[in-house]
This record gives sequence, structure tokens and C-alpha cells, in this order.
Amino acid sequence: MNGAQSLVKTLIAGGVETCFANPGTSEMHFVAALDQIPGIRCVLGLQENVVTGMADGYYRISGKPAATLLHCGPGLANGLGNLHNARRARSGMVNIVGDQATWHRPFDAPLTADTEALARTSSDWVRTSAAASEVGRDGAMAMQIARRHGGGIATLILPSDASWDGGGQVAQPFPDLAPPPVDANAVDGAARILRDHAGSTLILLGSRATLATAQEAAYRVAAATGAEILAEYVCARMSRGQGRVPIERVPYTLAAARARLARFSHIILVGARPPVGFFGYPGQASIHHDPAAVFHILTRPEQDEVAALTALAEALGAPTVAPPAAAPRPDIATGAPTPEGLARTVAAVMPENAIISDESISYGRGFYAETHGAPPHDWLHLTGGAIGDGLPVGTGAAVAGGGRRVIGLQADGSAMYSLQSLWTQARERLPVTTIILSNRKYQILIGEYGGVGAVAGPTAMNMLDLSNPSIDWLHIANGMGVEAARTETLEGCADLMRQSFAQPGPFLIELMI
Amino acid sequence: MNGAQSLVKTLIAGGVETCFANPGTSEMHFVAALDQIPGIRCVLGLQENVVTGMADGYYRISGKPAATLLHCGPGLANGLGNLHNARRARSGMVNIVGDQATWHRPFDAPLTADTEALARTSSDWVRTSAAASEVGRDGAMAMQIARRHGGGIATLILPSDASWDGGGQVAQPFPDLAPPPVDANAVDGAARILRDHAGSTLILLGSRATLATAQEAAYRVAAATGAEILAEYVCARMSRGQGRVPIERVPYTLAAARARLARFSHIILVGARPPVGFFGYPGQASIHHDPAAVFHILTRPEQDEVAALTALAEALGAPTVAPPAAAPRPDIATGAPTPEGLARTVAAVMPENAIISDESISYGRGFYAETHGAPPHDWLHLTGGAIGDGLPVGTGAAVAGGGRRVIGLQADGSAMYSLQSLWTQARERLPVTTIILSNRKYQILIGEYGGVGAVAGPTAMNMLDLSNPSIDWLHIANGMGVEAARTETLEGCADLMRQSFAQPGPFLIELMI
Repeated sequence: MNGAQSLVKTLIAGGVETCFANPGTSEMHFVAALDQIPGIRCVLGLQENVVTGMADGYYRISGKPAATLLHCGPGLANGLGNLHNARRARSGMVNIVGDQATWHRPFDAPLTADTEALARTSSDWVRTSAAASEVGRDGAMAMQIARRHGGGIATLILPSDASWDGGGQVAQPFPDLAPPPVDANAVDGAARILRDHAGSTLILLGSRATLATAQEAAYRVAAATGAEILAEYVCARMSRGQGRVPIERVPYTLAAARARLARFSHIILVGARPPVGFFGYPGQASIHHDPAAVFHILTRPEQDEVAALTALAEALGAPTVAPPAAAPRPDIATGAPTPEGLARTVAAVMPENAIISDESISYGRGFYAETHGAPPHDWLHLTGGAIGDGLPVGTGAAVAGGGRRVIGLQADGSAMYSLQSLWTQARERLPVTTIILSNRKYQILIGEYGGVGAVAGPTAMNMLDLSNPSIDWLHIANGMGVEAARTETLEGCADLMRQSFAQPGPFLIELMI
Repeated sequence: MNGAQSLVKTLIAGGVETCFANPGTSEMHFVAALDQIPGIRCVLGLQENVVTGMADGYYRISGKPAATLLHCGPGLANGLGNLHNARRARSGMVNIVGDQATWHRPFDAPLTADTEALARTSSDWVRTSAAASEVGRDGAMAMQIARRHGGGIATLILPSDASWDGGGQVAQPFPDLAPPPVDANAVDGAARILRDHAGSTLILLGSRATLATAQEAAYRVAAATGAEILAEYVCARMSRGQGRVPIERVPYTLAAARARLARFSHIILVGARPPVGFFGYPGQASIHHDPAAVFHILTRPEQDEVAALTALAEALGAPTVAPPAAAPRPDIATGAPTPEGLARTVAAVMPENAIISDESISYGRGFYAETHGAPPHDWLHLTGGAIGDGLPVGTGAAVAGGGRRVIGLQADGSAMYSLQSLWTQARERLPVTTIILSNRKYQILIGEYGGVGAVAGPTAMNMLDLSNPSIDWLHIANGMGVEAARTETLEGCADLMRQSFAQPGPFLIELMI
């Protein structure tokens, strides 16, 4: 058994079911091993940022790490943007990165790069296998990192001789790393705050605390005390819709966030971090909360948020409680698109148990208010701000979803970063309906440009404009095998959505906004 | 004057004429400064690997560094693949990378990344400006690196407060770094080798020694002594065609390279490195030359190769000599495409002074033999093996070329990595004719897969196959504003090429191979 074969068997023994791949020459023995040993579904992406983004989306929906297969240094580099997002999402994955044979590396062949340095910028764990006999064990360690509560990006670099040499040894899964125990003092402290200051206390959810079970435990606390619940703006996955607790996110802009958070003198963090702006601005604060607010860490992302919230509810003697009455399901909106109208329309037509992959950027900041009454669904956000994650995350989510419909709410500028995802959607016949929000400009940057107080001159506006030439998303989608249609109205968008939901494969709607 | 304005003025004072850009929020003050201060042409790319690849192509043709404008950590990460290629091409460029304001960075906002670590993986020089007052001087230092003989990738990280704070100071250009002087001993040593062993001596050209003037000096030496001339396989830019010395490259595969190089017991390196394989293979050698061959370094890439070759010619008393009689210009080939037929067809129809951007991968290894008789032209290759450089390098070359026709010879699989380049070609109305070599598979990997001795099972072949669904390049090109047509014959390709040469803007030909 060679090293590559031992790694495939180790991955299968550890429960890896899917490998998102863009292989190159140095990965050919691993490709051969995937071929020889059944048990892993291989999903090809035509650029590496598609591959890493798919693995992120897959984890967010399945909770299970996928493997990725990437080609030595520059191939890994191409995928770093979505590794950044995946790390901010606290997703887990095992990246297998081929590399030069150990004895070929000193010759500094053209593709040779500092693969470890690249990997370290966006990984929680990096190792280069020293020999075929080590590959299985290294793979098991990588999976242990990727499986841990709170996620982990594990990158295993595989010199090609460690792949092809004999002496490979399959490793059985290492025991799961137990999350750090819930801190009883933190629970007691939070309970005390809630008894004394519930009216000015915020429970801020982040990481996996935005999933349904944790939400319900948080709501039990809030209902008993009068504290309020919000989620971080950057949210990997939010359980939403009928029967769920209607939770809003901290607003994006400083002014809105400050206004929203002003009344909270105590903020209990559940897998969340103190809210700060994406960027600093001249003369403006970095923090979004009242500077005098006091933070209480109930759990860090690697701790068990459900256990901690349940312990908190019990310390408070809070009764179990049903979620609040569901908001009514909205009707579709009509006429020219507005953010609110689009949100209502999506809520009106989405099927049960849909997955929203939201890279709507500035257009979609208010989508939540209009969609609490939709059927139960999951909402995935851009977590790290590295644009180009919406299409691949939605694609990976569809691979994990087992038939669940994915609806992409996708700004056009960011869609261009990883448009190759459409091809994988067509190839795998995935149930993805992508709505391109086509405004033909970098709208967020035009807003930001105004914010710096500069005059909008032609050179600058030219750099923020995508209309010369206009991007024709129907042609692009068709070019990659995805059926597509254009509409300028919300009723047209509703019709196209319904039509796409009735078909098994992907569909793209270019919505002129 | 703020820091951003001081940088724009410093860049203009240093001769930077072009900025390839994909800005984000943290770069808005720099965008405003580009708007306020005329003198730099801004060219937008819709993904960062397009931006860095364009800067590479621009340098290869103009010999002048462009600036790039990239968005903080993940934006830079997206462009690292083509920075790797640019570094291997020994191109020069100044990357301006925005970043978090210094006082915002400690809050670890979602987009925060280790920008310096990312930059170091593919830069020759990295600096983070500490304050607005330093930005001009830092920019001048970056340009000094980028301008030096033998190229330099200089990356200047600009925290947004260093951009927007006042106190910016324009820096005048720093003096050019003189190349290390030609080594008289190296010249004498090479002359001695050539006197004693000319029949078994190879002059191997790399870096800028593949340009016309250096070629002519090398030919003067070879004609007087009987030594042979070859160029490295990895070649940033080769001056070719009628009136130039017909130089072949070292072959790609070990077997072919070994056969070609077997008779050389002495190899004189002129800006080149000892020839090695792209990858190691089980039981095969890394080196492509006779293991007993002796290397003589005439120049390193940072030295003046024309001065050294001229000194060598004079030490040998070699008379100046005209280049060999030109090969006849071939006629177009007809019928189904073959590599040789396509090369002849391109040679038959290309206009004077064309630029070939060649990312033909395995298909194009024999293109040179058929194209020596073409009109004078420049040929650009993939230098670092990080696929996805052909389209952006060709685009940047067209920006530098002042109307010279660029012909892209582009494999379909690698074209998908940076297809957004087509949009920039359309926007800037660049004279680029891209020929997509459409075989709908990763042909090189199918070859490599066979090389590992593995059976071609369905999982592996599925990962190397691009035909499910087929990529329709006409739709993709049209979607980005580029006119396109498909052909299955070489005469059809010739007609489409001629037609495209008569139009000012870009055109794409999908050639079914």
C-alpha cells in the first residue's frame, strides 16, 4: 500500500465522504488511490477558490469535514480567499495539498513555492508528511482538528514521494478532542447579570450558537428574564423561519449598530466576539457597542454552547418555552425590485428546508426582517469578507443537502470572482437557484467612496463600474451548462424561482436591480 | 496632501504609467487620489489573479513596472498565483495592497489577515507603511526594487490611515540599482571552454537573454565557435521570427530533454539555471542534463547579459555576424487541427510584430519548430507553472503593446482559471485574439496519470474531464462582451484570425482540437 492509498483509507475510516478537488500532476497518485478505493465522492471544481468554498458550504450544512485536493503551492494560493472565509465561519476541513517530491524540491523547479507558509496564513494546523509511513497518521491528526467543536482548517501537505512510496499505514480515527468544559463560574456570572440587569442585557450569539437548538436554549433564557437576543453580523449559518426564534443580526454600519446596541450595558457572548466594524474610518470608532458595556463570555466558539445555555436557563429556573408565534408568511412583491420586496418574494416561494447562500453584500442587509415568516430554512452568510464565496458555498451546501434547494442571493461583482462554480452545479446536477443581483457596479464601494468624502470623478467611477461592457449572466450561465433567464420584476423572479424549484438541476436568474 | 496622494505623485514621478486594479473599501483613498491626480491609466480586473497577471504581461512587453492595486489580505491572496508566475518570469511590479487602519487592526475584524505573510510568499520586497509621512519614500523604494535588472516583485502594504492621514511627502525616484558588474573571470572562463570544447558546449539562455539583442550577441559567439544555443523551457519572452536567431527551448519531458542535452559536457548559463524537470517521478532523475556536464555561470539574471555576451564575443575575437537566413514563412495548414498545423497557420497569418501569449500546456510544446519563419514577434510563456496566466498576461501585454496584436494560444482548462480577463479585454478594446484549444479535458493530467502506472478508472477520469457539461466558450466570451466564433478546421481558424486582425478589439476563437 502506498502513502496515498493509506490516506484515502484513513479518510474513509474517519468518516470523510466527500472530496472537493482540483488536482494537478503532483496529486496523480492520490487521484489514483481515490479511484482504486471506493467510498469518497469526488466533486471537481475548475478553480481552487471554488473548491475551498464548496468544502466550507458542505461543512456548514452537514457539520462534517470534507477533504479538498489542491495542487502544490500556487494551487493552494488560489484557494486561500475562501479558506479565510471558512476559518472565519469556524468550518472544518482537511486540505490535501500535493507538493514536489522531497528529493526534487532542492532543484527549485518552476512550480516550487513555500507551500507551508501559504498554508499557515489560513490554517489552524499544518503538517508536511515526511514519508509514506507517516501519511495515514498525519491524515488522522488532520481529521481530529477538522472535526473538533468550533471547527478547524487542517492542511496536510503531501510530497509526491510520500504518496507513491510503499509502506503506507492506515490510521484509525483519533479520539474526538473534547470541547473545553462549560465554565460554571461563567454560567453563574451570566445568571447574576441577568437577574440584576436583564433589561439592559444582550445575549449575542455567534459560531454554532446560531443553530436551532442553541437558539431555543437562548430564547428560554431571554423569555424568562427579558434579555434580548441578537446574532453577530458575520454568521456562518442561521436556523430561521417558521417555528424558529426570529433573531436579527447586529447591523453592518457603525451608526446603525451603535443605535441598536446603545441600550445594552451588559453583553453575554455565546460563541461570539465583541461587535466591531469591518473597517476603520477616519475619526470613527472601531467598536459597535456602548464603550461602557461590560462583556461576559459564556462560551468561546470551541465550547458547547447548547450545554452552557441550558445550564444558564436552569440556573435561572427558566421554564422551557415554545418559540414565539410565527410571523405570517409574506406574499410575493411585484414590480421593480427592492431589497425588501425581493426578501418577501423569496420568503413567499421558497420550499421547505431551503438553504440560502447570501452574498448579496450591501443589497441584502435588510433581508432578515422580511423573511422570518418563511418556512424553516438555513441562511449562510459571507463570514470573512473575502468576496467570491456565495456561489461555491451554495454549491457545497447543495452537495451536503441531499436534495434541499439552495437559493443563492448573489451580488454580480462578487459572483465574477468564482463564477466557475456554475459549471460544478451543472455537472453534479445540483438543486441550486442562483439569483444574480445585477446592478453592474461595485455598489458597496460607491457607498464607501462617498464615505471618504471624495468627489466622484471619472477615473474612480470607472473602477467601480461593471457596465462597460455589461456582463450577460445568461450567456455566462449557458456557457457552463446552467439554464438561465432574466427578469426585471419581482413577479417575474417569483415565477422563475417556482419554475426552477420544479426541476432537479441548477438554474440562474439575472435580476436587474 | 494625504499619504495616498503622495504615493500617486511618487509613482508618477518614478515613471509608473499604468495601474491594474481591483480595489476594495480599504483602498478608497488611493482610488480617490488616482482620480484627483492625472497621469496613471487605471485598468480594472474583476478578480485579482487577472490583475497580477496583467501586470506581469505588461512588464514583459514594456520592460516597465506597473502598479497593481489589491484589496487587503484575501484580495492579495487571490492574486498570488500569477505573482508566482511573475516572479519566475523575473518581472517587475509594485503591488499596492490596502489594509486595516493601524488602530483598527487589533480588533481582528472579519477581513483581517496576515497580509505581510501572504505578501512574503511571492514578493522580493515587502513593507508596511507605518504612517502617511513614510508612504512616498516607501513607494520610491518599492519602485527601485521593481525597476532593477532581473525584475523584482515589490509589495507595499498601505494601512488605510496611512492613506488618509495628512502629512504625505512625495519622494523623488531613488537611483537605479546598478546590476552587479559582469565578472571578467566568468567571461575568460567561458571563452576558454569555448576554445577547447565548443563542439560539446551549450549556451543556455534564460531571463532577459532571450531578447533579440542578447540573442544576437550569443549567436555571434556560437557562429564563431560552433557552440549551440538553446533557451530554458520556462521563458518569459522570446524574440522570434524573421531576422531573429532561431532558438529552440530545452524540451519539457525528461526523455526528450535528456536526448537533446546528452552531448553537452559544458553548459554556459546566461541568465539561466541548470535545466530540471517540473516534477520528480518515481525512479527518474530530477536533472535534464548529462550528470557529468559542467556548468559555467556567465551571468545571473540580475547581471547585464548583453554586456557579458558581447565581452565574451570580443574575448574570442568573434566577428559580428548577421543572423542566419530566415526560414521561409509557412502557409496555413488545413483540415483538422494538429499542433504543427496550428503553429504553421498562426505563423502564416500573424501580423508583423505580434505578441503570442502561450498557455497551450501540453498541446504547444512543438510550436516553435513551425514558427521560426513568421514575421518578427514576441512569444510569452507560462513561467511558473501556476495555470491561469495566459489570458491575463496577454491582456496586460496588449495594454503595453500600443496596438500590437496579441494572439493567445490557450488551453481550455487553464483558461477557466482567469476567464474574467476577457471582460477587461472588451472594456479596454484591446487587440487580443484568443484561440481556445478546446479539448474539454485536462489533457496534461491524463498524460501524467498514465505516467503513474495507474488504471484509468471512472473516478479519476471524471476528475480530468471537462466535457460534462461542455464549456461553451462562445457563450462565455459573449457574456463578457467579447465577440467569438467556433471552428473545427485550421483554414477556418485562419479565416477567423484574419478577420479579427482587421478589427480593433478582442476576439475569441474556440478551436475544437
